[in-house]
Amino acid sequence: MLQTPAYAAADGASPLAPFTIERREPRAHEVLIDILYCGVCHSDIHQARDEWGGNGIFPMVPGHEIVGRVVQIGDRVNKFKVGDAVGVGCFVDSCRVCPQCKSGEEQLCDQGMTATYNSRERDSKAPTYGGYSTRITVDEDYVLRIPESIPLDRAAPLLCAGITTYSPLKYYGVKAGDALAVVGLGGLGHMAVKIAVAMGAKVTVLSTSQNKRDDALALGAHAFAATREAATFKTLAGTFDFILDTVSAPHDYNAYLSLLKANGTMILVGIPDQPAPVAAGVLIMRRRKLVGSLIGGIRETQEMLDFCAAHGIASDIELIDIAQINGAYVRMIKGDVKYRFVIDTASLNAAG
Amino acid sequence: MLQTPAYAAADGASPLAPFTIERREPRAHEVLIDILYCGVCHSDIHQARDEWGGNGIFPMVPGHEIVGRVVQIGDRVNKFKVGDAVGVGCFVDSCRVCPQCKSGEEQLCDQGMTATYNSRERDSKAPTYGGYSTRITVDEDYVLRIPESIPLDRAAPLLCAGITTYSPLKYYGVKAGDALAVVGLGGLGHMAVKIAVAMGAKVTVLSTSQNKRDDALALGAHAFAATREAATFKTLAGTFDFILDTVSAPHDYNAYLSLLKANGTMILVGIPDQPAPVAAGVLIMRRRKLVGSLIGGIRETQEMLDFCAAHGIASDIELIDIAQINGAYVRMIKGDVKYRFVIDTASLNAAG
Repeated sequence: MLQTPAYAAADGASPLAPFTIERREPRAHEVLIDILYCGVCHSDIHQARDEWGGNGIFPMVPGHEIVGRVVQIGDRVNKFKVGDAVGVGCFVDSCRVCPQCKSGEEQLCDQGMTATYNSRERDSKAPTYGGYSTRITVDEDYVLRIPESIPLDRAAPLLCAGITTYSPLKYYGVKAGDALAVVGLGGLGHMAVKIAVAMGAKVTVLSTSQNKRDDALALGAHAFAATREAATFKTLAGTFDFILDTVSAPHDYNAYLSLLKANGTMILVGIPDQPAPVAAGVLIMRRRKLVGSLIGGIRETQEMLDFCAAHGIASDIELIDIAQINGAYVRMIKGDVKYRFVIDTASLNAAG
Repeated sequence: MLQTPAYAAADGASPLAPFTIERREPRAHEVLIDILYCGVCHSDIHQARDEWGGNGIFPMVPGHEIVGRVVQIGDRVNKFKVGDAVGVGCFVDSCRVCPQCKSGEEQLCDQGMTATYNSRERDSKAPTYGGYSTRITVDEDYVLRIPESIPLDRAAPLLCAGITTYSPLKYYGVKAGDALAVVGLGGLGHMAVKIAVAMGAKVTVLSTSQNKRDDALALGAHAFAATREAATFKTLAGTFDFILDTVSAPHDYNAYLSLLKANGTMILVGIPDQPAPVAAGVLIMRRRKLVGSLIGGIRETQEMLDFCAAHGIASDIELIDIAQINGAYVRMIKGDVKYRFVIDTASLNAAG
């Protein structure tokens, strides 16, 4: 086993601190990856603080926006070679036999995907540890190829924030010329704007106040509206083909649904901690849809990475050392980051 | 103008009583229809009692499940001739120029369809009067052809209950072999079972108690489960591709959504008087959809009638005289009808 520096939460009440984990030598179909960068997702905070049902697996090493280079491969690996730039996203395994796994939608595995961290290996039941560490061993079927034209640090958030927004735009059929509202301009929202604009959609950012107007337009959005201004919901009523809602704070779904045209679709990718009331009539009278989407499968994640490379898209990031992680969490909770913190994992060798 | 016997509610607090309305001689593109039968929809009660926002137009002649025969045609009518068996559903006009009207989805008209009753003509702003009357004048583009193989009295409910259930099954892509749950076994639910079975779906009826088990199976359903039994939501979790929810009483959408497989769709056609809480996670984690559907367009309504004729499908009805209408409303509110009251409008000539 390979002794590997990491940062872990000892329990839901403790800050992240230096920790050592073991990574295995790659088995026949596995690759060993030297992690260079790891994005910091808001779900890292929820899980490290054990806010999702209190069944977190501790010590917990978060991180599922992993980018690095292959340093060793198993005997039967044929997709990657040593030196390749690669990524690992939200999951590292799945059942491989259910209808979704067979159709390349492993994120919807009937038996539950094996998450990159805070989960258990399918065979050994050993805990999985994420990307706040310097290396990871993963089956090649769950590894992505990072196009070399994307700066590797700015590629990391594509593995979660990128695919979470790309997948529903594709799956629900957003096409050139469609009017799309992106609700919320954080890690997910800023990727949604870039990707949707590249797809040719007419993108309006909806955010609570006017504060983010300039940033939204700078990211490529065609329009902006502040949702705290009452006129917004009148002016924009019935004007969108799609709404991509990235907000995980409570908000009024019915008000947003009313902004959809007939046959329009509102896509949820943020999970508020309380259910929100939905009026059947708002859906029925204009044949609207309220739908969910969860990250994306491996095949589609690769497609997204290639799409981003082709369109010159990467995440806007703030690169940090691992020692800054607890402060970064505090800033993220305040929404104070443009738009994703990414850990330079070289700093892990110096830490601890 | 043609003096025409009808039954009307004088206001939201009054029972239905004899009333005389005027129907116009058919204009160039219109047909005059002798009404033979009119189905009694639950929405007739809501509107006659002014329970939808208090802006009902009175006196009100309800009825939007109309079947009759053409007795006179305008100069330029080319779709129908005198003697044809025809139907009129929930609307008699629409803007004809918006994207939905142009694509044959007139029920979703951006300017609002002209409802068959409790609405206003687009030109004169005169109130529209429905099928609790002996004749009606309608533009041929909003008239359906009733296949002669369907008994005309049993065809009437197809114009609302039939299309309301057929349209979403088609639009959302229910296909042979799909597992479909029909929630509620009333006027809509019993049509949903017949149509979905004819489409080849594997149909399970979900109803509060075991009372309707035998009826559901007799209608062709393959399975039945009682939703008041706690085991139902465990046993059936994650088993349906589609749920068609016909219930307009408050119920827990999240519980039903949990019965969907990954990528499953729950279709609402009933409108409870209160919004219901929806948990984003239930939609997101399995990429589920909660969607609405509203009757159907003219082209699709014709398709549904032809489908019903081809599959020997008609509504199960109780034929009543108009004098029984107020008692029928009382029984409908108790759910005491299998499955639709239909007025024999010949009784209107004797009434009043």
